[in-house]
Amino acid sequence: MRNNTMHQIVDFILELDKLKGVTRKTRPLGLDRYENSAEHSWQIALLAASLARFAAAEVDLDRVIRMLLVHDIGEIDTGDTMVYAEGGWPERKAAERAAALRIFGLLPESQGSEFMALWQEFEDGETPEALFAHAADRAMPVLLNLANEGQSWRENGISHERVVRRVGPPIRAGCPALWAYLEPLLDEARSKGLFGGA
Amino acid sequence: MRNNTMHQIVDFILELDKLKGVTRKTRPLGLDRYENSAEHSWQIALLAASLARFAAAEVDLDRVIRMLLVHDIGEIDTGDTMVYAEGGWPERKAAERAAALRIFGLLPESQGSEFMALWQEFEDGETPEALFAHAADRAMPVLLNLANEGQSWRENGISHERVVRRVGPPIRAGCPALWAYLEPLLDEARSKGLFGGA
Repeated sequence: MRNNTMHQIVDFILELDKLKGVTRKTRPLGLDRYENSAEHSWQIALLAASLARFAAAEVDLDRVIRMLLVHDIGEIDTGDTMVYAEGGWPERKAAERAAALRIFGLLPESQGSEFMALWQEFEDGETPEALFAHAADRAMPVLLNLANEGQSWRENGISHERVVRRVGPPIRAGCPALWAYLEPLLDEARSKGLFGGA
Repeated sequence: MRNNTMHQIVDFILELDKLKGVTRKTRPLGLDRYENSAEHSWQIALLAASLARFAAAEVDLDRVIRMLLVHDIGEIDTGDTMVYAEGGWPERKAAERAAALRIFGLLPESQGSEFMALWQEFEDGETPEALFAHAADRAMPVLLNLANEGQSWRENGISHERVVRRVGPPIRAGCPALWAYLEPLLDEARSKGLFGGA
């Protein structure tokens, strides 16, 4: 019985290995490859931990961290979609949810449903923890682009206006001080030509 | 003042990006590259979360997770050293500690010292949380090797005896049920020739 539970946990952890192969549009600073969703999840957990004092509301930081560690797991089946994609989001989200159910379903039920609840809380984006987690998730590629000459914005034709419209509201909602910090930097980046698009 | 704090946090997070470029000896399953310490840190945090019920003693899982997220950060300056390296550990550990002090020192003092305390707790390996965190850290490459035809053991000439001697005690100390699960699998792997060395 115990061995069976252990076997389920091991199956789950080895399935997670696939997230290391899900690539995003940003490149790690100084590296000639795209970032993957596993290392991204690690980094935003630490971004949230570092930023906690600036959350819009009081948050249970540990729940934020756990949420960020699991929030991209559905991409194992669907791949990553850049936040600037237009349209198709309901279908993508449904596919990611099915994937999360499949992958967390590898675990013993009580453990799997705990992770699934965290995943769902992030998706719903309503609790203070989820709002703050979204802010960290959306801010990270902005921070990398600001340090990387707008690499993923330029490669994908993303304009300043589109960045501000798409990531401004969630960052402001979860971590207003971070948006106050980023907004002038984004203006400066525009004047340096770090964006793509019109 | 607030902007200055935000700037320190951003400097820290961008410095962490370098951990994505620190490679280990194991390859992610099915990928033709070596694993990096950032994605490894993410995975073992989730391994610990999944295994918590099997910890040798009652643990504060959230402290375990935070510890695992920061435990490899010193490698940004030193690189990763395979656990099977013989000798040189005190020097390596001192260099990693200096690196951790440098990197956490980028943060506002209260935040930096909190991370540093977690890093040090992991290094000291004495609390139930640190012991359990070590078990997860040591078990993960074993699980990958068992699923990967002993890839890093064979590539680095690591024998069955050396694996059992080096990772057996910490895994058993932090998570005895996991070691009970792994020990027969390691015996089986030996009979299949998945190890290197004599």
